[in-house]
Amino acid sequence: MLNRLQLTATVEREAELRYTPAGLPVLEMWLKHQSRQREANLERDVACEIQAVLIGKQAPQWGGKLAGQQVAVSGFLAQRSLRNPRLVLHIEHVEFVKG
Amino acid sequence: MLNRLQLTATVEREAELRYTPAGLPVLEMWLKHQSRQREANLERDVACEIQAVLIGKQAPQWGGKLAGQQVAVSGFLAQRSLRNPRLVLHIEHVEFVKG
Repeated sequence: MLNRLQLTATVEREAELRYTPAGLPVLEMWLKHQSRQREANLERDVACEIQAVLIGKQAPQWGGKLAGQQVAVSGFLAQRSLRNPRLVLHIEHVEFVKG
Repeated sequence: MLNRLQLTATVEREAELRYTPAGLPVLEMWLKHQSRQREANLERDVACEIQAVLIGKQAPQWGGKLAGQQVAVSGFLAQRSLRNPRLVLHIEHVEFVKG
């Protein structure tokens, strides 16, 4: 089952690194994307903001380094919780975007 | 700038085909995704619901045919409007998923 989002964005805000009760490191952040896209043969401005989370051994490697940075991220979308349908991007890969 | 979502989902609801004031056909729908994904070397259940829109000449081709169907869609994410940050998938490609 396909569930894959690829996005370049600015990291508007980055939370403190924290750990789940099971000891898994978790890094939450808020991403802002702006771009031009084509739709029905028309160019249009596109903007969106999305919460993202990086869970596991990558989290401490990136903690404290992302706020304000341009990044390219990919991962899957999940709703925040059973009762909260807000979409969260679960990051599998992150890299800085130059320039 | 990357902004690409690929998702397999069930079309929970499909609106009537409508036209913008400029005459562009618009087909709105609500998608439900469920799958298993790997995160931090652990398998986990993932669910999410997202509103989607198909704008342009494809819209009339699919109108009335999607409700209840399993589809594979791809496109870009945008917030619903300047004041409404809810994420909407703007579909560029849709196909039925067999079985």
